[in-house]
Amino acid sequence: MEKTAIVLLSGGLDSATTLAIARNQGFSCFAMSFQYGQRHSVELQAAQSIARSSGVMEHRIVEIDLASFGGSALTDSSIDVPKDRRQITSGPIPETYVPARNTIFLSYALAWAEVLGVFDIFIGINATDYSGYPDCRGEFIQAFEKMANLATAAAVQGRGQFRIHTPILMMAKSQIIQTGIRLGVDYSLTHSCYDPDSQGRACGHCDSCRLRKKGFTESGVTDPTRYQQ
Amino acid sequence: MEKTAIVLLSGGLDSATTLAIARNQGFSCFAMSFQYGQRHSVELQAAQSIARSSGVMEHRIVEIDLASFGGSALTDSSIDVPKDRRQITSGPIPETYVPARNTIFLSYALAWAEVLGVFDIFIGINATDYSGYPDCRGEFIQAFEKMANLATAAAVQGRGQFRIHTPILMMAKSQIIQTGIRLGVDYSLTHSCYDPDSQGRACGHCDSCRLRKKGFTESGVTDPTRYQQ
Repeated sequence: MEKTAIVLLSGGLDSATTLAIARNQGFSCFAMSFQYGQRHSVELQAAQSIARSSGVMEHRIVEIDLASFGGSALTDSSIDVPKDRRQITSGPIPETYVPARNTIFLSYALAWAEVLGVFDIFIGINATDYSGYPDCRGEFIQAFEKMANLATAAAVQGRGQFRIHTPILMMAKSQIIQTGIRLGVDYSLTHSCYDPDSQGRACGHCDSCRLRKKGFTESGVTDPTRYQQ
Repeated sequence: MEKTAIVLLSGGLDSATTLAIARNQGFSCFAMSFQYGQRHSVELQAAQSIARSSGVMEHRIVEIDLASFGGSALTDSSIDVPKDRRQITSGPIPETYVPARNTIFLSYALAWAEVLGVFDIFIGINATDYSGYPDCRGEFIQAFEKMANLATAAAVQGRGQFRIHTPILMMAKSQIIQTGIRLGVDYSLTHSCYDPDSQGRACGHCDSCRLRKKGFTESGVTDPTRYQQ
């Protein structure tokens, strides 16, 4: 029987690699992205390019309104995206945190999975080279998975158990890039910057840019990112 | 300090009673409803009337697209709403089940709660006079609550612990109605039917209508519902 999975695909480096890993594990993949009012919506174009070049079975972009809740630099243009923070992975949770974002993303993936009869969901969260978001930690994923298996008819009726896969959770950014390169990921298609200019070029100074830059430097892979100036 | 809560308000009898209970417990309430492609969207007008008459601080109706996933009689007009089922509370999960619906609803409530600085969320699920939906059971709520407290900056940084309140979880429908009457709920404002006609009149035969009817009969309260002839 064909193995199928849903992969959450933001358009960034991590989720592109996660998709490649899922495919390498033999899964035929459905990709899911979100237009959630993010200021860096250029990442959705990246997600489309990645989905297309990866031959996913279907790519669905769901529009959800998180901007109206506010509370995050990523969805509220009146809050600045922090630049050149001293401590990225050990400091306080920054303003780019979006309340309950991964919970909402995974909930939609769960709904689609149940309708499709899919039980495997991949998410490219990373708890090593990351900004300390609580919903990028393994404990959160375990709790979500447990909840999912109590929430759904598919699980309760014994048709299967949902599993949330986090293959890059404990990898350093450089390992993620090396893994992706081995699996044929074209990182020039990916977008990571939280605060790109109108041409989609990366700022080079937000957490996401700096973690990405560091990853390319440490992995010895040429950084294909287009930076501003 | 003022006690505040978010109440999920569908416009039905259960959620209207839950809102009244939350207010009676001293909470100032924010109400949240969803336009999710349900065929009985007349319930949203009911939700607005209830919110208005209850003096909530804000009533937010979030548009989400569950219909595009399909898989439920409530969001797909090609699937019939089951009528006059022999066993409602002990039979198989019916076609009106919407995959991951309460998970998605609670995820949005969690996002809004975190932005507002609210830690109490009320949901009018009932595991007694109900259709056997898995996401209307206490085990699900406990798992969601645990997940919520791992998912969010507010909880992880110690500003508070989220609590999902289910005050009518174990009540019979008649008890719910008696409780609501005592608290002044105007049930003529509420809408329960899954398959109303174009004038918003209840069919009288879907699970939701029959559980409601039974509740009014057993509670000795006059049923204010407008039925189709």
